[in-house]
Amino acid sequence: MDKVTIDGVCLTPLKDIVTDGGCVLHAMKKTDVGFRGFEEAYFSVVSYGTVRGWKRHRNMTLNLVVPVGEIKFVLIDDSGSSKNLVVCEFILSRKNYCRLTIPSGVWVGFQGLSDGENMLLNLSNLLHDPAESDHKEIGQFSYNWDI
Amino acid sequence: MDKVTIDGVCLTPLKDIVTDGGCVLHAMKKTDVGFRGFEEAYFSVVSYGTVRGWKRHRNMTLNLVVPVGEIKFVLIDDSGSSKNLVVCEFILSRKNYCRLTIPSGVWVGFQGLSDGENMLLNLSNLLHDPAESDHKEIGQFSYNWDI
Repeated sequence: MDKVTIDGVCLTPLKDIVTDGGCVLHAMKKTDVGFRGFEEAYFSVVSYGTVRGWKRHRNMTLNLVVPVGEIKFVLIDDSGSSKNLVVCEFILSRKNYCRLTIPSGVWVGFQGLSDGENMLLNLSNLLHDPAESDHKEIGQFSYNWDI
Repeated sequence: MDKVTIDGVCLTPLKDIVTDGGCVLHAMKKTDVGFRGFEEAYFSVVSYGTVRGWKRHRNMTLNLVVPVGEIKFVLIDDSGSSKNLVVCEFILSRKNYCRLTIPSGVWVGFQGLSDGENMLLNLSNLLHDPAESDHKEIGQFSYNWDI
């Protein structure tokens, strides 16, 4: 686990175990760092260049893995007393096979980086509830998404 | 949910929600049919033609989805009093996007059917424990895996 500069955000390397004719990719165990309970699992697929964001969950902890393609995650913490935003970037893929744990209260945007499909799995501690998250248009934070 | 002929096996159609530049694929909610608790999530990847099996879990309920490629699952129930095996086949993919719930006590084999990667996600009610499952060589049940 690598600690980064936004409280509660963790990047945890995961095992990619090669087998004859395939592999097994770990995602999450209930005993893992960052596990906050399980209520829902879903995939999100984004094409090359497509950006999703910004979204900030009020109660949900995200636990994200990227088993297909490559996805950039941009995290913004605007909760500080100063006007300086804390911005963290992570690029996940099978080459950098990790789980990214994002606590509630952090703005999240993400973008597909690979030509084919780019797929994340979120293992969430809460059922999806549109009322539980806040949204901003992508231009409302200044971030250069050019690839 | 479609009931099939092995007790406790369920095939539950899932939503594949198309979005601009991607999609969201449901996998499992804690309120879903077949959910027996969560302790671990992992992916298994198999190449075209590769067969895995046979394995029978003593306590684990499998909840399987196939977000990439196409996988055939063959389930065998040999628990009956007669010598007749009950055999059920399921082919899962994004075209037939469903969750397959397999209770403990059922023999399971599976095979990759698509040229590219074939990937399943198992959302399991138990942590992986090699001592919790029984194994047979693939030839120990008579099943024709020819594609």
